[in-house]
Amino acid sequence: MFVLGIDPGVSRCGYGCVEAAGRGRGGRAVAAGVLRTPPNDPLPRRLAALDREIRALVAELRPDAVAVERVFFQVNARTAMAVGQASGLVLAAAAQAGCEVVQYTPNEVKQAVAGYGAAPKEQVYRMVQTLLDLPQLRPQPDAADALALALTHLAMARFRSAVAR
Amino acid sequence: MFVLGIDPGVSRCGYGCVEAAGRGRGGRAVAAGVLRTPPNDPLPRRLAALDREIRALVAELRPDAVAVERVFFQVNARTAMAVGQASGLVLAAAAQAGCEVVQYTPNEVKQAVAGYGAAPKEQVYRMVQTLLDLPQLRPQPDAADALALALTHLAMARFRSAVAR
Repeated sequence: MFVLGIDPGVSRCGYGCVEAAGRGRGGRAVAAGVLRTPPNDPLPRRLAALDREIRALVAELRPDAVAVERVFFQVNARTAMAVGQASGLVLAAAAQAGCEVVQYTPNEVKQAVAGYGAAPKEQVYRMVQTLLDLPQLRPQPDAADALALALTHLAMARFRSAVAR
Repeated sequence: MFVLGIDPGVSRCGYGCVEAAGRGRGGRAVAAGVLRTPPNDPLPRRLAALDREIRALVAELRPDAVAVERVFFQVNARTAMAVGQASGLVLAAAAQAGCEVVQYTPNEVKQAVAGYGAAPKEQVYRMVQTLLDLPQLRPQPDAADALALALTHLAMARFRSAVAR
């Protein structure tokens, strides 16, 4: 199973694709990176460019599932709006491509990857390195968040199939 | 000039297309209605359906400009997120179709259509009827909001061309 994690954003949109590896908690990293749009372009053009890149990524990687960070508004309302707009594109594009689409909160990701919902970011990133067996990997934070989302979905899928047995 | 106004939303997304008519303040209504998505469907599927309908609408009407309500977060954060996600789809689809894309706040719409930014909704709707010369028209509120957005953009375009002369 291929899972594409996406940490939505207009300035920086992290992505990370993980393939399930055996029965363990980890997986194999297939791709990871950050999509960016020119900050001086008007918002509609930036969203149009992001939409094209997301669709190209989904077409190339052909994930079975797309795990997207669930967005909240506690922070800056202006930033949150752009994040919400980006997440709308991602959810629509992934559903149109026929993928299973699931959203996870930041706390659910921390719980699944690092073992508790209040884990600091650094600890989550170290667990991402460990679970993907890439101790030298230093992905950009948005890409690491996206890999953590993908690992979260794999953990949830394993849990669901264990419960079903 | 054709202007497509869109009042974004996932449950109800209003649209209204207006053609500029001569030098007056009004215009000719070309189309108006409300796109809906099934409330019991998962959000990604609803956004995917909305995205398809928006793109079909833009392809059919071929507007020169798309005027989209600018979304804020003062209300319910849960609703606002869905509205933000819907607006992201609209902005991206319109920009990809090569339209000019402009956002207006609710106050800018009231100012342009009814003459002052604190005008009640009912007054805005009556002005929409008057400016489109459709006294019998009783569009659904979301469609009327979208027609008001289109009229706002026509007023702004006329103002800009008057200033340029």
